[in-house]
Amino acid sequence: MQARALFGIEHPIILAPMAGGPSTPELAAAVSRAGGLGSLGVAYLGPAAIRAEIAKVRALTDRPFAVNLFVPEPRPEPAAPDRARVAEVQKWLAAYRAELGIDEPPLPTPIPFAEQLAEVAAARVPVVSFTFGVPSPEAVRALKASGALVVGTATHVEEARQLAAAGCDAIAAQGAEAGGHRGTFAGRAEDALVGTMALVPAIVDAVKLPVIAAGGIMDGRGILAALALGAVAAQLGTAFLLCDEAGTDPGMRRMVAAAGDTSTTVTRAFTGRAARGIRNRFITEWGAREPAPFPLQHLLTADIRAAARKAGHPELVNLWAGQGVALARAIPAGELVAALAAELAAARRALAD
Amino acid sequence: MQARALFGIEHPIILAPMAGGPSTPELAAAVSRAGGLGSLGVAYLGPAAIRAEIAKVRALTDRPFAVNLFVPEPRPEPAAPDRARVAEVQKWLAAYRAELGIDEPPLPTPIPFAEQLAEVAAARVPVVSFTFGVPSPEAVRALKASGALVVGTATHVEEARQLAAAGCDAIAAQGAEAGGHRGTFAGRAEDALVGTMALVPAIVDAVKLPVIAAGGIMDGRGILAALALGAVAAQLGTAFLLCDEAGTDPGMRRMVAAAGDTSTTVTRAFTGRAARGIRNRFITEWGAREPAPFPLQHLLTADIRAAARKAGHPELVNLWAGQGVALARAIPAGELVAALAAELAAARRALAD
Repeated sequence: MQARALFGIEHPIILAPMAGGPSTPELAAAVSRAGGLGSLGVAYLGPAAIRAEIAKVRALTDRPFAVNLFVPEPRPEPAAPDRARVAEVQKWLAAYRAELGIDEPPLPTPIPFAEQLAEVAAARVPVVSFTFGVPSPEAVRALKASGALVVGTATHVEEARQLAAAGCDAIAAQGAEAGGHRGTFAGRAEDALVGTMALVPAIVDAVKLPVIAAGGIMDGRGILAALALGAVAAQLGTAFLLCDEAGTDPGMRRMVAAAGDTSTTVTRAFTGRAARGIRNRFITEWGAREPAPFPLQHLLTADIRAAARKAGHPELVNLWAGQGVALARAIPAGELVAALAAELAAARRALAD
Repeated sequence: MQARALFGIEHPIILAPMAGGPSTPELAAAVSRAGGLGSLGVAYLGPAAIRAEIAKVRALTDRPFAVNLFVPEPRPEPAAPDRARVAEVQKWLAAYRAELGIDEPPLPTPIPFAEQLAEVAAARVPVVSFTFGVPSPEAVRALKASGALVVGTATHVEEARQLAAAGCDAIAAQGAEAGGHRGTFAGRAEDALVGTMALVPAIVDAVKLPVIAAGGIMDGRGILAALALGAVAAQLGTAFLLCDEAGTDPGMRRMVAAAGDTSTTVTRAFTGRAARGIRNRFITEWGAREPAPFPLQHLLTADIRAAARKAGHPELVNLWAGQGVALARAIPAGELVAALAAELAAARRALAD
């Protein structure tokens, strides 16, 4: 199975969904227009915003694209967050609010997953991908009935097996190099940091589904390596962080442009879930403290991160990026896709010699 | 530059040195005879044993092979170990000795690096590789004068630059997936767990030297991926752990055969240096304690690990293995090299289609 047959795209290049900033309809559309598969990370958006973003992509391209959602924890969430826990985290965060000159806001309400899912199904998008868990068989059926291909994200073999059993059409294998949230839902994320080189062949062997390789892929060499490992396509996020169409704010662009191969770490400080980002003051100062669970920690720190972004102060912002960050290129996304495709072709020829 | 031209080998396959058990002259020779580059891990051996092991390899094959040494810390070592530190670790270890029915032995003496180096130079071996640091310019000159190619091990770009500046002929890029000791010498090993997919292209771009890719490579797909990333050869250790000629003890063989993609972790419990191995009781019980520095912790735990091995009790043994461990094959090493070469050729054809 090749990416062309599966997704109807020209190049085996998928834009990683990057909810909460870098993901924009313009970026997704630019990647799709150039022959890759653009993705919209809409996990932090309500139904109306999801509808608007999808419409924007469609206004910019009639090519296939993907929409990504976060699967909520299967355990029943408490009706209200633990007040003692919230108070403790707010106390830790008070110094940052003082520094930024902002007041503690009311705690935002999380957006119900069922409403997001219904909106995405109603929008009849070509590809729907999930992170953080296994979508229910009903959700998978509803999306397939809407015409979507359903992609699940796995960080180790057991997760890939669960996603296959739930009826997913393809598996995104997220290696430890990847930027942003670790997709891990079976076991602790810290115990499942399997590198792309080991992860992709293991998942290819374990499930009879097309596998998308993600993590540390930054250029044509990496895409060819992903295909060599048995993947049908490579998913790149960090590679697009500096593209003109990305929603990456200026402070983060500076940090990304200055980062090297050992600049990132895995932290739960910002959202309560393990995620890879560029080491900064907030991560260092948070240290080994126990954050509130996701999405509570995300909601608790949201105002600080927004204010810090606005103030051009990236030391208090979640700078999600993968280990290949030093190779990110500040060019339009369409040019990047064209360059990646040309590099892939050249690397393929070099390897055949 | 291709592996054939650089090392005089038929296949771009290098056996990782695996000092302290799995490495045997028989394993190294079997890999070299089959057209790969066998390696001897002699870092824990004295000059006489080094001489004997090299002679054994030469008795079994006249093809090229490599010898690996650990570069000691550049800072002056204290003449004697910190007695309070030793007493503290011995106290922690007492329960294991009681369980195994052994007495606390006198602390073994570390073997001087200068003597090892002189022995290896005198043996005039084809390839000498280093881990844990930058060999001195004098050592590099002496080895080159003896006819050896000198390979340095890097876990991030800055280390590769230092090794290139010291005159190394090639760089082994050790990705985070790799089993055994992390080669990190610049910065903390825990901060330099860069996956192979991100590491290899970064080092290829940073130094004008041939790069050997290591970490998570278990079959022809992985070798092809390494070449796609720009490496001249792939280095595999874990893939050979179950081979007949490996010195892997029976208890460890059972643990390796049962391990999956999330079975390994990085620990300093056994030797004082970060190393990737299969999680077991000793690692779990050691927890977050601060071990003595390398090689002191290695010397302090050596009797326990030896007794546990003898007793068939792998829960107290350092089970060095990489994240691809589930794909290790229990076949003769020569057959494994032939299978890897055939898989590489098949994967190359499949990718060209």
